[in-house]
Amino acid sequence: MSQEKPVRVAIFGLGLIGGSLGLALKAAGAANVEVIGCDIDGTVLRKARQRGAIDKGEAHPIRAVREANLVVLATPISVLREVMAEIAPGLPEGCVVTDTASTKEGPMLWARDTLPPAVSFIGGHPMAGKEEAGIEAADAGLFQDKAYCVCPPADAPEAAINTVLWLAQTIGARPLFVEAKEHDQYAAAISHLPMVISYALFSLVRASPAWQDIAPLAASGFRDMTRLASGDPQMAFDICLSNREAVLHWLERLSAEIDRYRSLISAGEKPLFETFIRAQLDREVFLAMPPGTRPQSAPGQRVEDVPNLQESVVSFFAGRGSVERWRRLASLGSRSKPQQEGREKDGDQRDPGPHSGRR
Amino acid sequence: MSQEKPVRVAIFGLGLIGGSLGLALKAAGAANVEVIGCDIDGTVLRKARQRGAIDKGEAHPIRAVREANLVVLATPISVLREVMAEIAPGLPEGCVVTDTASTKEGPMLWARDTLPPAVSFIGGHPMAGKEEAGIEAADAGLFQDKAYCVCPPADAPEAAINTVLWLAQTIGARPLFVEAKEHDQYAAAISHLPMVISYALFSLVRASPAWQDIAPLAASGFRDMTRLASGDPQMAFDICLSNREAVLHWLERLSAEIDRYRSLISAGEKPLFETFIRAQLDREVFLAMPPGTRPQSAPGQRVEDVPNLQESVVSFFAGRGSVERWRRLASLGSRSKPQQEGREKDGDQRDPGPHSGRR
Repeated sequence: MSQEKPVRVAIFGLGLIGGSLGLALKAAGAANVEVIGCDIDGTVLRKARQRGAIDKGEAHPIRAVREANLVVLATPISVLREVMAEIAPGLPEGCVVTDTASTKEGPMLWARDTLPPAVSFIGGHPMAGKEEAGIEAADAGLFQDKAYCVCPPADAPEAAINTVLWLAQTIGARPLFVEAKEHDQYAAAISHLPMVISYALFSLVRASPAWQDIAPLAASGFRDMTRLASGDPQMAFDICLSNREAVLHWLERLSAEIDRYRSLISAGEKPLFETFIRAQLDREVFLAMPPGTRPQSAPGQRVEDVPNLQESVVSFFAGRGSVERWRRLASLGSRSKPQQEGREKDGDQRDPGPHSGRR
Repeated sequence: MSQEKPVRVAIFGLGLIGGSLGLALKAAGAANVEVIGCDIDGTVLRKARQRGAIDKGEAHPIRAVREANLVVLATPISVLREVMAEIAPGLPEGCVVTDTASTKEGPMLWARDTLPPAVSFIGGHPMAGKEEAGIEAADAGLFQDKAYCVCPPADAPEAAINTVLWLAQTIGARPLFVEAKEHDQYAAAISHLPMVISYALFSLVRASPAWQDIAPLAASGFRDMTRLASGDPQMAFDICLSNREAVLHWLERLSAEIDRYRSLISAGEKPLFETFIRAQLDREVFLAMPPGTRPQSAPGQRVEDVPNLQESVVSFFAGRGSVERWRRLASLGSRSKPQQEGREKDGDQRDPGPHSGRR
């Protein structure tokens, strides 16, 4: 979509996502983009206007989509189908409709069933968020450098796809094409599973009779690991219903993984240590070279198939002292078991020299 | 301990914790405190000196404790018993020894078995950390306002306890008395369980054959929930071994809690929604009024026993719009099920008026 002629964008739902979209659009190309906001709550529309997230608030859905080039549905997924049905009669011919819901199979089906053939629906999901909800928490930088999943139906016109790519790029995000079914599986693993685990961890520890004594010991670890439990409960509920099978699948797999860790911890041997080191190294690679930013591998070859990944990683981080750390950890790991036993039995130290390590 | 006369503190292990302790001590009372550092690694001693974490580096343990008033053992717990045995012959009479290990039952026993009767051991555990390890990551502010668990044996002299309280307060932490056995249970719940879950979540998703496609979708949720898996693998291993029973106990309980969530999600009814709301409200209370900072309840009465907690919470957050949010969520929750079904069956909207919500 050319930025030369003004683009009219209608955003439905001016919470965290819709409000941030409006702010980011206005910040990026104010002169060429006119943003119309529609929300069930008049106060929210006023606040969105005051914050500069929208040029104009419109309470009525049909009036809100009038002459719109692009309609962004950022409502809770639980009302998404209804909103589609409501705006359907008023959508201009050639208009592009997209959404921001956390799952994509449902919205794609609902769009096919409710929207007129003269408009194009392209599923969308910006992979960004924070625990605060509402227009007050909206932030023009929320999408900066974040992935923005784009799910075009098989028959989507290229111009419609480009419109949603334009939206993603204008707000600073990295558009990523993904098929709806795969999106829902991937999002379950990387987003919905962590969310449910965050709730489960918090509610478990909170339910302890010793909570009043446990809680004062909480440091950043517990706070970070339960942060997602402070998100919008309505969204958590909607996600679990709209992506139920995938969420249940990943919860089952995590239970199995926890069982694996329980066995490793029960045994308390080198494989536990190797599991921790492996995870730490893999996460360093993930943070330093997230997939998608790496040089393309040969077809069929994955980065993890490259021989000597471990050495590569160690070399890569050499400048940060990891080689030394790795060597130290590896040597500690290999002698950890005899050491563990030795400490209990062996009062007579074989090496009486300086022997303090460090954490 | 009076700050009028100089205090000689020997810190063993100048990694993140030992290094930060030195920096915090020097920052708080440089003139009155002399810090001697001892580490297995000469490079670390030099860096600690350059960073101002210690006044003097000493490679030999016996020389390091000479004339020390307070000895802080900040080595990995896996070498703690050895270090105690090494310094035992050189400890001055009346000297106080403390540690910073993540568990307390083991160190208390080892101290009783290895240290001479003329010195006092008081267990310690500052509840602070970050994923970076080593002297490079040391930070004078690491302990600011953090809990610092203090575990005196039953027969500890008051002066020895006061020395460790002085240490905790000088570095800006909040000392908290806790019995060693309870400490290990509580730390398992609030610190070791989240750590293991962080590893399990990362290694599970990382092991997926679709990882290369899943990872680009990762947003702050996945990163935060797996942050602890970037911690020191040696420490993770040591914690799991030294607090094995408690960690296994809490992992088992979390598995049961995950099963409960799986049932709730399978059913997809109001109890799931209530569980999410309950957790979110409880976490808001936890963040706003963490236990220990609240006005004292009447004896035997816990804060959660106060009638109408829910209303209190809602009123407490009224200024931040939570009353409105709560009402909206509650009403959405109660109609969520019929809505879910209705959406699928009912093409004919009963309420054709403005109907967009917001996330």
